[in-house]
This record gives sequence, structure tokens and C-alpha cells, in this order.
Amino acid sequence: MKLLHALPADDGFSMPAEFSPHRGCILIWPERKDSWAGGGYAARKAFTEVITAIARSEKVTVLASFEQYENARASLPPKIRVVEMSTDDAWARDITPTFVKNKEGVLRGIDWGFNAWGGLVDGLYFPWDRDNKAARKICDLMEIDCYDQRSFILEGGSIHSDGEGTLMVTESCLLSGGRNPKMSKEEITEHLCKTLGVKKVLWLPYGIYQDETNEHVDNICAFTSPGEVVLGWTDDESDPQYPMSRADLEYLSHETDAKGRPIKVHKLPLPSPIYVTEEDCAALDPMDGEPTRVPGDRLAASYVNFYIANGAIVMPAFGDKNDQKAAEILQTLFPTREIVPIYARDILVGGGNIHCITGQVPE
Amino acid sequence: MKLLHALPADDGFSMPAEFSPHRGCILIWPERKDSWAGGGYAARKAFTEVITAIARSEKVTVLASFEQYENARASLPPKIRVVEMSTDDAWARDITPTFVKNKEGVLRGIDWGFNAWGGLVDGLYFPWDRDNKAARKICDLMEIDCYDQRSFILEGGSIHSDGEGTLMVTESCLLSGGRNPKMSKEEITEHLCKTLGVKKVLWLPYGIYQDETNEHVDNICAFTSPGEVVLGWTDDESDPQYPMSRADLEYLSHETDAKGRPIKVHKLPLPSPIYVTEEDCAALDPMDGEPTRVPGDRLAASYVNFYIANGAIVMPAFGDKNDQKAAEILQTLFPTREIVPIYARDILVGGGNIHCITGQVPE
Repeated sequence: MKLLHALPADDGFSMPAEFSPHRGCILIWPERKDSWAGGGYAARKAFTEVITAIARSEKVTVLASFEQYENARASLPPKIRVVEMSTDDAWARDITPTFVKNKEGVLRGIDWGFNAWGGLVDGLYFPWDRDNKAARKICDLMEIDCYDQRSFILEGGSIHSDGEGTLMVTESCLLSGGRNPKMSKEEITEHLCKTLGVKKVLWLPYGIYQDETNEHVDNICAFTSPGEVVLGWTDDESDPQYPMSRADLEYLSHETDAKGRPIKVHKLPLPSPIYVTEEDCAALDPMDGEPTRVPGDRLAASYVNFYIANGAIVMPAFGDKNDQKAAEILQTLFPTREIVPIYARDILVGGGNIHCITGQVPE
Repeated sequence: MKLLHALPADDGFSMPAEFSPHRGCILIWPERKDSWAGGGYAARKAFTEVITAIARSEKVTVLASFEQYENARASLPPKIRVVEMSTDDAWARDITPTFVKNKEGVLRGIDWGFNAWGGLVDGLYFPWDRDNKAARKICDLMEIDCYDQRSFILEGGSIHSDGEGTLMVTESCLLSGGRNPKMSKEEITEHLCKTLGVKKVLWLPYGIYQDETNEHVDNICAFTSPGEVVLGWTDDESDPQYPMSRADLEYLSHETDAKGRPIKVHKLPLPSPIYVTEEDCAALDPMDGEPTRVPGDRLAASYVNFYIANGAIVMPAFGDKNDQKAAEILQTLFPTREIVPIYARDILVGGGNIHCITGQVPE
């Protein structure tokens, strides 16, 4: 693996859309007892369902700690590759490299700086060194070259690309004080263009209410095809989410993408609010002696947090009346893919969902 | 990776010779402070020379702990792949899978039991669980299937195959009390035939004097081509090694290989005895409070511990008068390969040599 210090766009590289064909997908086996309730057993079961669903149409590599390797190996079908790697948690989306490609089809990775979603300002755990070191190691494992972007803090869940020059992010996340506070919005826009090979960055104001990642875009809005997005939505005006989704809709209604197309917004209903229970809290280790969750806290549940596999949309389900409706909307938008809803509350309690625990590798 | 419980020979698989073409080679980055003097710096320099020499003619993957990954990555050329994996030390020969192939060229690994060269009887360190788990993980990493042979204790350094049905081992090692004491020599022979797809096992009586592995064959005798071997040799009848090498020579003189050929033995002179110094001992961490080495102990130095790369013989050198002579003999026996001597005392102090720290992957 060569470590590259140029800018990917200058080398002719850009980030493909998630709905482009994949070579495979990377996930991380969950074990952290202050993230995953009940020692992680329920989470590992849910992860296994996600992994198995994805593996029906693409190759899957699961990273596991030394301690959990045998457990992962025994729990997963033989066709899943399990590879030992140290991480701090299981959010593959945010710590795997962002893959970029050139016209000849050469694949490279970008290794961003990772500081657990806000570092010492409002990060979610400390330390985060094992996570921060993972992207480069994944490039090494894959025998591809890697752009060193560790001086710029970014997580994979905070960006969505349409593969045609447009990137989508949220202001709440990318302008947060715990990431790149010395850079202006304009400077960040320019840097994203130079690293991801895009021409335009769409800045949604908000993400999902109480999303601990400072509102990653991948929980509120996703490209379903060039020029089309789904947006997490509620019609309940009393819900604190309402003005947030509303502001995003307003923003998108007045924007065009890099190709000059207006953005077609498909509203994807949110599930009814899901709250942390006493039972959840009793099953989580405290972090540095403090409770990691508080009963009654609202979880950032959203159907937008789906993964686009080669042959499927693997989407979170919550046992909610909107599960079916969301699945139907996604089926319309992804007519060639099987919609696979997976009950995901046990992932949600960890702080994210199916998109957050996956990282696609473009073909 | 599928875990297989059949016997490789029954499936049509057998172990290729080391001198057959390789897909690549696996090594492990050394760091253990009770194995590698002076914190491992000198050993890592020597390993790097070995790795670089091998990488000139085949692909090399280096396994490194989480703690040493960055160090390994920065020390090694970009074309070397570095992969995180937990091990207990750096003896790749003994803990990587033994690879077997069938006629269609399918590659599989055998995961033997590993107990640090003798377990609780006379093993060299405790615990050894990370080493014991490595072979299976390497198969998983390589996406090949793996035979589960963990109930049989064997190290890669204790076997040599001619690729034509003959295996060579030592009695001192394979009949040692710390490995498979409940099996007779006949039972072990039969098991080796069934697992490695060989027809005949040559049982040399001895290895190298004071070789801590219970005298692995790879330090005393190696196939250079079918029907031909090099044997570590001294003409000094007062050397305790003399009767050992002599006994091996006698044995080989009266044996034939699986094809019925007599064995042509080429004597490879040993270097003059090399001893552990006060300085070596002062630079090694104790193990469980006990010294790992004692000044004046003889080290098991031998030129036989070379690695056969696709394009080179990477051989240990000791700054000894016999370095040149050994290189010349090997050049005659391997006329198409470059002879690359590497000063290896810093590997030897760890308890083995170049062959011990490498594991070839057949093409």
C-alpha cells in the first residue's frame, strides 16, 4: 500500500454512488458492552441477519477483534470472510475508507481523521485510536493505495454521493465544533470537492433529531438515483423532527445538483418515536462510570438508514406501522432490488442503524 | 472459509515442496521482548532484510499486532502487504497453515494444534492461544478452506516435503513428550500420510544440538530437489553435533524416498558454535521472572535454515568462515536462484532462523 499525499480529484479520482455496482461490503462485529445492550448478543444476531442479507448479492468481509474472531466465525456462514482487526466499536460506515475510483477503474481509499464524532468537544467515546487506524489497514489488506486525509475529520456516514458530481452533507454535522472548526463552510466545500472529486455540495441544514453523530446525512436523506432522494419525514407538526425535515425539504426544493437537475424529493415516513427503556439502560455498561443512555431518551430511528446492496435494499424495521409503507416506497424507487427489512432496534440502541454498520467497496 | 473435518489425502490434497512455485510468503513482525533482544529493533531490521529479499521474487504479507502495525508499515516497502493479526511471537513457519493442493490446483490450509513446542511439558512460552488461532485466520483471510487438525500437535518447521510423496521429520521432535505422546511412531506416520498426502515418512533421528524446538527438521536437513537433501554437518568429532549429524547421515544412506530413489546427501557445513552472551541476556526481558537465556548457552545456528523463494535462496549468515562455503554449496544445488545471505544472529538469538520466520504459500 502506498500512502498518497495528493488530492484524489487532482489524480482523476471520485467517489461512486452507493447504488453503483459493488465489489463487496465491510462490516465490524459488535462487542462493546457500553454500546450494545446485554453484552451484544442481540446486536450480533441483528448484524448477522444484515450480513447474511447483503451476502446474497455481494462479497462480505467482517472485521472482528482477536477476542471475538472465533465467535464471529462460528456465527456467520462460511462464505463470509472474517478478518481480525482492532477497532473501538462497530461503525464500519464511519471508519472504513471512503473509496474513490478513476476512469480506468482503479480503486483507492481515503483515510479521513476519525475522532469518535466530535473528539474532546462532543465525541462519544475515548480513546478512538483503534477506529482511526482502521481505514489505512483496510486499504493495506485490500492491496490498494490510500490517500492520507487524517488531518481532516470526516465520517463516511456524513456524506452521500450521487456519483455524478454531487455530494450531500448536513450543516449540523460538518460545521460542528468537534470536527474541523477552523475551516469555514466554503473551505470545507472546496476540500470535499478536491478529495471526493465532486463539483457541488448540497448542505442540508439538519439530520435526525437527537442523532448523536451531530446528525449524519445518512440517517435523514439518501440518493436513490441521480437527481432523486428520499428524505426522512413526519407529518406531526408537534414532533421536534418536523421543523428539521421541513427545513431540509425547503432547502432541497430550491437546489439543483451538479448537473443542474432539480432534486426530486421522496418523503420516507419515519417510525413513531422510539425511546430508550429502563431495560435498555440496565443492560448497558456505564462509560467511565457514567450511564451511556438515559431512560426516555429518544433514539434516532429512521428508515433512511438502509444499505444499497447489489441485489437488495437492506432496510431497518422497527415493528412500526410505517415499516410496510417505507418498504413500499423503497421498492418503487429501487425496482430491480429486493427489499429486505430487518428488525433493527437492537442496532438502533447502539446509536445507529444498518447504513452506519456497513461500508460498500465499489466494483 | 469452510472448516473441513475430512483428511486432506482422502480429498486428493497433498503438500507441495518448498522449491515448487510460490504465490507468496507470510511473515510475522517481531516484538516480544523476552524473545528479541534490545526491544526487537535489531530483529526487526533483520526481518526487514529477509522480507525485502523475498519480495523481489514473490508477494509478501507481514502480520503485525495492533501495537506494531504502524511501525511495520513504516519500516517496510509499500509493495509488502501488512495485515493486523494477534500472535504470541513471530515464528510464521510454525503457526501458519500448512498448505495443500489438489490436481486442479485448489489450495487449502491445514490448521494443526500449536502448543509452543511442547505445551506444559517443555513448551517455550505460555500462553500460546494467539499463535494457535492464527492458521485458521490466515485461511479465512485468503478465502480458502481449512482442515481442522487442532487435535494433532505439529509445527511447520518440523516437516519437509519433497512434493513427490516423501516427508522428512525428526524423531526427537515428533516423538517428544510434549506433542502427541499417546500416538506411536507408526500412528504418527500414518496420520502424516493421511493429512499431507505423502506415501513415506523419513525419520531422521536428530536435529541441531540444543535446538529448543526439540530439533525441528528444518534446521538440520532440507530437500533441495526430489531425492536430494542438504544436511547440517561438522567434521569436529568433539562437537556434540557430530554424532547427531552422523546418525542422520547413516539413516539417510540406507533409505530411499517414496519413489524408491536413494537419498543423495549434500553436507552443508555448520558455522562455528555461537553462544549466548552476557550482552544478549541483559537485553532480554525475563519470562515469568526467570531469565529467558543464560550466557554461554549454545545457539542452534545452521545454514540449513534457509528459505527457498521463487527467485532466491535467502540464507542465514553469521560472519563465519563457513558463510561463503555454505553459499557456494547452495548455489550449486539451486543454480537458477540468487543466493542472498543475510546476517542473522539477531534472528538466531530469538531461537530460530530465516526458515522459521517464513511460511510459503504455494501457487
